[in-house]
Amino acid sequence: MAQIAIIMGSKSDLPIMKEGIEIIESLKIEVEVDIVSAHRTPEKMVSYANNAHERGIKVIIAGAGGAAHLPGMIASISPLPVIGVPIKSSNSIDGWDSILSILQMPSGVPVATVALNGSKNAGILAMQILGTYDKEIQKKIIVFKSNLKEKVMESSNQIKK
Amino acid sequence: MAQIAIIMGSKSDLPIMKEGIEIIESLKIEVEVDIVSAHRTPEKMVSYANNAHERGIKVIIAGAGGAAHLPGMIASISPLPVIGVPIKSSNSIDGWDSILSILQMPSGVPVATVALNGSKNAGILAMQILGTYDKEIQKKIIVFKSNLKEKVMESSNQIKK
Amino acid sequence: MAQIAIIMGSKSDLPIMKEGIEIIESLKIEVEVDIVSAHRTPEKMVSYANNAHERGIKVIIAGAGGAAHLPGMIASISPLPVIGVPIKSSNSIDGWDSILSILQMPSGVPVATVALNGSKNAGILAMQILGTYDKEIQKKIIVFKSNLKEKVMESSNQIKK
Amino acid sequence: MAQIAIIMGSKSDLPIMKEGIEIIESLKIEVEVDIVSAHRTPEKMVSYANNAHERGIKVIIAGAGGAAHLPGMIASISPLPVIGVPIKSSNSIDGWDSILSILQMPSGVPVATVALNGSKNAGILAMQILGTYDKEIQKKIIVFKSNLKEKVMESSNQIKK
Amino acid sequence: MAQIAIIMGSKSDLPIMKEGIEIIESLKIEVEVDIVSAHRTPEKMVSYANNAHERGIKVIIAGAGGAAHLPGMIASISPLPVIGVPIKSSNSIDGWDSILSILQMPSGVPVATVALNGSKNAGILAMQILGTYDKEIQKKIIVFKSNLKEKVMESSNQIKK
Amino acid sequence: MAQIAIIMGSKSDLPIMKEGIEIIESLKIEVEVDIVSAHRTPEKMVSYANNAHERGIKVIIAGAGGAAHLPGMIASISPLPVIGVPIKSSNSIDGWDSILSILQMPSGVPVATVALNGSKNAGILAMQILGTYDKEIQKKIIVFKSNLKEKVMESSNQIKK
Amino acid sequence: MAQIAIIMGSKSDLPIMKEGIEIIESLKIEVEVDIVSAHRTPEKMVSYANNAHERGIKVIIAGAGGAAHLPGMIASISPLPVIGVPIKSSNSIDGWDSILSILQMPSGVPVATVALNGSKNAGILAMQILGTYDKEIQKKIIVFKSNLKEKVMESSNQIKK
Amino acid sequence: MAQIAIIMGSKSDLPIMKEGIEIIESLKIEVEVDIVSAHRTPEKMVSYANNAHERGIKVIIAGAGGAAHLPGMIASISPLPVIGVPIKSSNSIDGWDSILSILQMPSGVPVATVALNGSKNAGILAMQILGTYDKEIQKKIIVFKSNLKEKVMESSNQIKK
Repeated sequence: MAQIAIIMGSKSDLPIMKEGIEIIESLKIEVEVDIVSAHRTPEKMVSYANNAHERGIKVIIAGAGGAAHLPGMIASISPLPVIGVPIKSSNSIDGWDSILSILQMPSGVPVATVALNGSKNAGILAMQILGTYDKEIQKKIIVFKSNLKEKVMESSNQIKK
Repeated sequence: MAQIAIIMGSKSDLPIMKEGIEIIESLKIEVEVDIVSAHRTPEKMVSYANNAHERGIKVIIAGAGGAAHLPGMIASISPLPVIGVPIKSSNSIDGWDSILSILQMPSGVPVATVALNGSKNAGILAMQILGTYDKEIQKKIIVFKSNLKEKVMESSNQIKK
Repeated sequence: MAQIAIIMGSKSDLPIMKEGIEIIESLKIEVEVDIVSAHRTPEKMVSYANNAHERGIKVIIAGAGGAAHLPGMIASISPLPVIGVPIKSSNSIDGWDSILSILQMPSGVPVATVALNGSKNAGILAMQILGTYDKEIQKKIIVFKSNLKEKVMESSNQIKK
Repeated sequence: MAQIAIIMGSKSDLPIMKEGIEIIESLKIEVEVDIVSAHRTPEKMVSYANNAHERGIKVIIAGAGGAAHLPGMIASISPLPVIGVPIKSSNSIDGWDSILSILQMPSGVPVATVALNGSKNAGILAMQILGTYDKEIQKKIIVFKSNLKEKVMESSNQIKK
Repeated sequence: MAQIAIIMGSKSDLPIMKEGIEIIESLKIEVEVDIVSAHRTPEKMVSYANNAHERGIKVIIAGAGGAAHLPGMIASISPLPVIGVPIKSSNSIDGWDSILSILQMPSGVPVATVALNGSKNAGILAMQILGTYDKEIQKKIIVFKSNLKEKVMESSNQIKK
Repeated sequence: MAQIAIIMGSKSDLPIMKEGIEIIESLKIEVEVDIVSAHRTPEKMVSYANNAHERGIKVIIAGAGGAAHLPGMIASISPLPVIGVPIKSSNSIDGWDSILSILQMPSGVPVATVALNGSKNAGILAMQILGTYDKEIQKKIIVFKSNLKEKVMESSNQIKK
Repeated sequence: MAQIAIIMGSKSDLPIMKEGIEIIESLKIEVEVDIVSAHRTPEKMVSYANNAHERGIKVIIAGAGGAAHLPGMIASISPLPVIGVPIKSSNSIDGWDSILSILQMPSGVPVATVALNGSKNAGILAMQILGTYDKEIQKKIIVFKSNLKEKVMESSNQIKK
Repeated sequence: MAQIAIIMGSKSDLPIMKEGIEIIESLKIEVEVDIVSAHRTPEKMVSYANNAHERGIKVIIAGAGGAAHLPGMIASISPLPVIGVPIKSSNSIDGWDSILSILQMPSGVPVATVALNGSKNAGILAMQILGTYDKEIQKKIIVFKSNLKEKVMESSNQIKK
């Protein structure tokens, strides 16, 4: 049963959100994926947010672009930590609208915002959250980070002079 | 029975939204006022947006600051025209977050956005919308505009040289 | 006789404004289209704004880019609600100039601003305004919104896992 | 008879525009001052712009804040050079709206834009324009500049070490 | 033993970070507080980040202003989820520098960024993360949210008309 | 003998500045063109600015990109009106650097700034300045403007419905 | 004989530039101070930049606000490293103009830019540059940095819990 | 033995940083090149910064994009002057994040920031710093600058009219 859910406002967000799905699956962790639109399916969004923690979901990753309300609205209803991915969609002003409408949540309703188009980082963050209790997952994160280091060391060796 | 509703996300928005209430009442038009928070009372917001047009409301003015989701969420549910007032609240970054999260709505769900803190203009716009059918109200708008002109003419006379 | 008018500052704005024309015509509502430039045909603009409401127009949609004065100037003269569409034209700085010179109207003269290049949303907003009195049109809006929802549901079914 | 006209959109712009009036008068050059609002007195604005060059005016300085349309609209009608002063009025977003809606004029209709609140520089620029033909005025500009230099030299002497 | 750590780059950040400390303590959850500067005590920072998860810390909240490197550097070393609080310190450009240097982390090293000066939301997010496994804490979050709702309902009753 | 001079900081600015040269030559007015770099030929720049008005030049148009110092430095030395053209060169941040470093001149030293890449408007403005005394040139401007109007009228006829 | 020179465009910049003077003098290093304005004393600026390295100056710190041309113009003439301090003066737009017109220098003419109002850091950087050859000065920098660390350690002890 | 070191956060930064390497090598000055990532190899970064000045390095150039922490972190540890090159990498928001997270360093820890993607200027600045004591290098800088001038003179001759 998936403990991480990834939702997005539109099918056109999938190319960006895929990176988050892939990084999670590459560490052999299950992930649930769906399209939930704050503006086009508000009722589905409300019931999704109300039920997620009861279905066993522990972290929700929500991606959206433009006036991006999905992450904040999910966070307003669910008691779970919500990770917001601002997407530089075609109707976005260089991504500023997506970033600000996800990041600047009012007091009482946080969204854990990652970098523009940063769905891969959202996936890693979700696993770090699971890893706070699940030592298997935390170990995977530690290995992942040490792999990052090795790749840098390799390219250092290639270009060094 | 009020045809214009003014809602806002928090009591702290009242000083700004008051200007909209007053301009409407000054033209002897009824207005309904309430606090509806997208992030703190999401269920109330959904039912408010679902019912407004059936209660006789014709235009909804919604003010909010920061990651301002109220106007867009109301617009996603209600068939009525929704006017959004971006508020430069204390938790806002010079108002940019409020503006962009109200203005940059995705295709299919417009919000009629006015200037930062522009609740007075929101009130006038709401009356112009009623005035498209109600000739009494349109006449009031025409008189209002001609008063604006006269005030400028007066100050012209005072400073001209 | 058309109740909605769409005007734009230059023929080069047509590709963007077309989306607004099409959404209105797709719901079988008549729309009037013209080019009116605040900066190149100021006299035509003034007479257009003075006469529109007497010719039966109920809402004016005005699109313009750069230092976009058309929507605001029309709004300063006409008693009708004016919807402004900021266009990211070739001479625009990422659209910021178009947005700010349409949105930030002074007290007394509102322009109902929609998202950058959001002429489709302008069309929907215009129909929502007509729909406040014309229940036929409001019904079309409700059907339109429920179609939006269905499309999201379909893509949800396609990608869900 | 004045050759320089200074107009502004509202009486509240006078404290800023005063610096422009004073620098011109301090060089014993006549200046005409009036309030002309693009949004509240559009007809007066059109006739003002149509007639100025026939009344002997050679340069028009226009100050405005927020969605500042006055300088551009005057420039669209008059054949005279128009100097625009963006004003950081109370309804402005840090002045960006004023700057962009004056500066970013479309091809064919220039506005000579000066710094935010730069009405003093607008006055100097207007005199430099007159000075292109009137050698008396050009001489005054040369003296003015050499006074600037001297003031810097003096403060250099005060703090140097 | 504290499971949440709050660190900040300078004592001058304490007034902002206090809100995060207080919201956590108000829910009777222990919190560890320290000053760790990326730029002035880089070695302490490295050892802090290396050891935190072995000391039993589960979430680290890091606040910093200007070119804010503390949250990102902690996240680069520790396997724990790191929450970043951008602070609008006196040397900040309206907070943009703090936000961007915390939010825009490269692929592989996420920081869960909250709103400018949003240390209270950082505290809530940290508790939501603990709550994914600790049902006592999750219950507290649910109660906290329902209190938010009630306060809005009360102010609604006060101003409604 | 040319009364208008167009200078630019680098040969790479020529494609943009060409539009200004062409609009002036199309009205049969002479124009002088040169490359003068504030940063690479500072001595040439100083002597150019010192001599221009004595050689009969009446207006100087200066184009530059990035940290664009040429227009302001020319204006600091010459008594002539200087028109600045901010260029969105390859090393520019969306043009903001070019705009701000030309527009925001200190008190006493104005630069008449036009839109980003607006060299055509700079040419028109220069001719309007000459036209304040030279009625032949002013007439050309009036004809030019009425041609602008006609082109809009034609495209209006093409798309109107 | 001073090896570090601090210059500024106006006496009003002194309160900011003082912090740079003081940090240098506090480490018992000599510093020369003067007012040199790119826009009001261009000839003095040129001769200053031409002679500085021949008088024994090794680093020039130049502070300026608004369209800040002083650091870049000095750098265009002198072979010395030039440190630019963007100043948020009263005529600045939140400091963006100062930053961009100092930072975004064209290829071939670098300015070492520090933070907005960062004259203290400019002073430290100047000493670090001298310290590359003068080991006495480098030692002072090392001591200075270790004092920074100690102050953080002390405040850590005060607030830790 | 190299006196200038160029480091960068990732191999993908090499195309930009190459211009800096080439300008230094073109003046026959040795340069050391390596990849050092603040976020992926924090321990290597710390030891690099601790040792550089003891190995004979006199200036460090560090390039990085997005939330660019490398230059500031190196500067926090090393007593050497550090030149930061903000890189507009693929994950950057138009370069603003890179610029602000390098430029806006806190008091006590300067980074000498150059223009976006300005690695060539970083190379020149590094040589100017060496040139403060090494007169051979300073002479090369003077020749380099006079070549810049000549190229401008040549293109002036080509386009002048």
